[in-house]
Amino acid sequence: MASTTTQAYLESKPVVEAKALLTELCRQFYHLGWVGGTGGSITLKVHDDSIPKSQQLIIMSPSGVQKERMLAEDMYILASDGSIVSSPSPKPYPHKPPKCSDCGPLFMKAYQMRNAGAVIHSHGMESCLVTMMNPASKEFRITHMEMIKGIQGHGYYDELVVPIIENSAHERDLTDSLASAIEAYPKTTAVLVRNHGIYVWGDSWISAKTQAECYHYLFDAAIKLNQMGLDWSTPTHGPIKSVQGVSRGVENRSVSC
Amino acid sequence: MASTTTQAYLESKPVVEAKALLTELCRQFYHLGWVGGTGGSITLKVHDDSIPKSQQLIIMSPSGVQKERMLAEDMYILASDGSIVSSPSPKPYPHKPPKCSDCGPLFMKAYQMRNAGAVIHSHGMESCLVTMMNPASKEFRITHMEMIKGIQGHGYYDELVVPIIENSAHERDLTDSLASAIEAYPKTTAVLVRNHGIYVWGDSWISAKTQAECYHYLFDAAIKLNQMGLDWSTPTHGPIKSVQGVSRGVENRSVSC
Amino acid sequence: MASTTTQAYLESKPVVEAKALLTELCRQFYHLGWVGGTGGSITLKVHDDSIPKSQQLIIMSPSGVQKERMLAEDMYILASDGSIVSSPSPKPYPHKPPKCSDCGPLFMKAYQMRNAGAVIHSHGMESCLVTMMNPASKEFRITHMEMIKGIQGHGYYDELVVPIIENSAHERDLTDSLASAIEAYPKTTAVLVRNHGIYVWGDSWISAKTQAECYHYLFDAAIKLNQMGLDWSTPTHGPIKSVQGVSRGVENRSVSC
Amino acid sequence: MASTTTQAYLESKPVVEAKALLTELCRQFYHLGWVGGTGGSITLKVHDDSIPKSQQLIIMSPSGVQKERMLAEDMYILASDGSIVSSPSPKPYPHKPPKCSDCGPLFMKAYQMRNAGAVIHSHGMESCLVTMMNPASKEFRITHMEMIKGIQGHGYYDELVVPIIENSAHERDLTDSLASAIEAYPKTTAVLVRNHGIYVWGDSWISAKTQAECYHYLFDAAIKLNQMGLDWSTPTHGPIKSVQGVSRGVENRSVSC
Repeated sequence: MASTTTQAYLESKPVVEAKALLTELCRQFYHLGWVGGTGGSITLKVHDDSIPKSQQLIIMSPSGVQKERMLAEDMYILASDGSIVSSPSPKPYPHKPPKCSDCGPLFMKAYQMRNAGAVIHSHGMESCLVTMMNPASKEFRITHMEMIKGIQGHGYYDELVVPIIENSAHERDLTDSLASAIEAYPKTTAVLVRNHGIYVWGDSWISAKTQAECYHYLFDAAIKLNQMGLDWSTPTHGPIKSVQGVSRGVENRSVSC
Repeated sequence: MASTTTQAYLESKPVVEAKALLTELCRQFYHLGWVGGTGGSITLKVHDDSIPKSQQLIIMSPSGVQKERMLAEDMYILASDGSIVSSPSPKPYPHKPPKCSDCGPLFMKAYQMRNAGAVIHSHGMESCLVTMMNPASKEFRITHMEMIKGIQGHGYYDELVVPIIENSAHERDLTDSLASAIEAYPKTTAVLVRNHGIYVWGDSWISAKTQAECYHYLFDAAIKLNQMGLDWSTPTHGPIKSVQGVSRGVENRSVSC
Repeated sequence: MASTTTQAYLESKPVVEAKALLTELCRQFYHLGWVGGTGGSITLKVHDDSIPKSQQLIIMSPSGVQKERMLAEDMYILASDGSIVSSPSPKPYPHKPPKCSDCGPLFMKAYQMRNAGAVIHSHGMESCLVTMMNPASKEFRITHMEMIKGIQGHGYYDELVVPIIENSAHERDLTDSLASAIEAYPKTTAVLVRNHGIYVWGDSWISAKTQAECYHYLFDAAIKLNQMGLDWSTPTHGPIKSVQGVSRGVENRSVSC
Repeated sequence: MASTTTQAYLESKPVVEAKALLTELCRQFYHLGWVGGTGGSITLKVHDDSIPKSQQLIIMSPSGVQKERMLAEDMYILASDGSIVSSPSPKPYPHKPPKCSDCGPLFMKAYQMRNAGAVIHSHGMESCLVTMMNPASKEFRITHMEMIKGIQGHGYYDELVVPIIENSAHERDLTDSLASAIEAYPKTTAVLVRNHGIYVWGDSWISAKTQAECYHYLFDAAIKLNQMGLDWSTPTHGPIKSVQGVSRGVENRSVSC
């Protein structure tokens, strides 16, 4: 395993390609509105057939930087245990000294608890707002939507359930509650963070990215259905039914209208 | 006809150009929001003046792939009867083994029943939500909108009627109901699928694409007019009139507000 | 004046540059959502210091084509009286035989009645919906918005008034009502068409384009303010006041909510 | 200090790079919807380690131009006291003679009162509409949103307060009220202008840009939460509570629904 941390390996094709891919994904996610204002982040493993996934190197983007302007050389390389094996060189003013993603400990939970190949942290507006429609809800639920089929292990008739954890002052303070949610929801491939965004993982970068696209689509649909007074959490998607002045999943709407 | 399946023909200019065009359209449709998260698909015939349209080769995109990252070499080539004559080579991990579009049988219906030159399957948010505004409706209707003129066989004063079929667990299970809708609505060039999206076809790829753009525009307008309480299904586009607490085409809105 | 129609002049730098510019603007306007689905169009004069504006050649895009895929060679060249002096060559299947923009007669009105240097016809969703918020209104009015300053002859405190004409089955049938609106509103640089879109002109292509951007911005703002129940047609932008169940400019909203 | 105004310095690498960067940012901001229709503007200092920030040259974009079409040669260079040291050459018809940004005096206030490294003036729709939701409010307030952490000096639990000043007929007439707001709100890095947009500054162009992205995100969220009847100005983000028919921060909504 030590072989992955030799300078030769750090400059090998799998590592170079993984850094280039992460750079490209950062740019694409910026244009999707997931990582604006230095928010959000992404990480992926260096795929190498000769190395077990649990021991593969990890690439992470730096913290607090403009994701659409990243270069491959800006990326961090971590060992499979999360320790940094290669840091980017400092850039001149006005760039701040490099710092590895604040999401590091959270990303490691998805790697270790789910054997993920990649993890995306998005601040996409839909993922933030969907946690706010019902400030008391601990889950986002939706069913009977075609795009649910894009989420691993789910079919059209299934109910997709995404846990929502409460936000904290510092990203690292979310680590325990993220881990608890991952444990409590063995079928989930994502955890929403209230007033904040979402963490999504997958077996590979393709799985993480395409699932993230499906999640954002479903959240966007839910927000728009809410505005139309429709209840996406039931198979019939009928009008929202109020219970004592509070309707399921969108309690605030009926109160305000 | 056998001539279209020779290796020489499969590498001829019409085939090469059709594959390149499909690749380019996949990328454009991704940016229009029609084929995100591996959803949606597109197919077109290989135009060749020397071959009757009913016998021309068919290009299809693979299933479950990122449409914005396709290369011409990723495409399937099918004979006019729908049998595969050329499959893409497998790509390395983390790409899954190639599989022809799940929409194949549905695309073939449009080719065979309407002599289409191209078919687009979109998951565009507008096409999904427009089927949900009234969960009981079996049709989307709109009239007196300029963009209706972009739909084949329709003028500004005409009523555009698009049938809505119910969704199913697997794309292939939609084949019969799609065929029934095509038969029942001889004037339509599209079929909506509840909680899912739309199939649009045309005599050529240009016709299919530009009509698809018009359909998405009209659906988007209908959703926004619904939010403003306006009834787009009447020539005057006046306020939605409720009948026993249920207004035409947007029944849920009046219930919830 | 005959000199402008010689083959040498048709291939001169001013003409070549004008065709290239129109091509580039078509692409940009497609991405702004103004000319999707073959809808919308644009025209501009060939600027040449040595020729009076009223006698300069006119470039027009063809009718019913994909605006984002135009080439300079696809453009029509018209004499200052509107007669075609150069037509594009037909393109192979599935392209239809070229036809000059259906908006031709309408564009000519702006050229002749206002000495315009360019005219834009947009189907942008905002320009369509803004004519529908109040189906009975004959004008769009807004005041106290910074972007009003982008409209020729208007300041922040001015009221911007854009006439709305009714749509017709064929674009050419709009010619007389467009001309009447231009005459009746000497200060306007645009005419809205109900359920359809907008015509905007300016002294030059820059003036037409930047004004069109401001109009679309103001329409978008008006639609969103309507959704918030705010009255953009008064200086205070206060809540919409209903008069006998009908509020000014947005009568349908109060009826439906 | 005179050295910065020599012709050699004006052609030196720091100046050339700053002009290129400003050009690139103009294009990016156009696509973000911040500077359409010639509205909005941006300025930044020429970073040079050998010159104190207060004495560095200033680059400004010209007034009333299409921001997405700027070239480095179109930019103005100003001395640190705001006097012009280099003007762009006039461009041929239909370009107007160059004129330095109307925002000049306002930009200088942020440079002088806050030692800013860059200032952005955006007409982004979110920044305009957020000042209109409550026409009587003098501040925009929001708390408990992750993206607040992107604003200098703010944490997740903090309340972000952005002053709103009233608009005027001419940009320059805003100078005094902008200065007053900067003075009255020592913690703010932005000032909103009613019915208009926002001024945002930062220590460097990176700080100004990424904060501007966060502000636009938060305004967009607030507008959408308003539509859902949710109160973003309280930690719980609960339903908007009406006080005598007027709810906090969004008084018009409850009146109109």
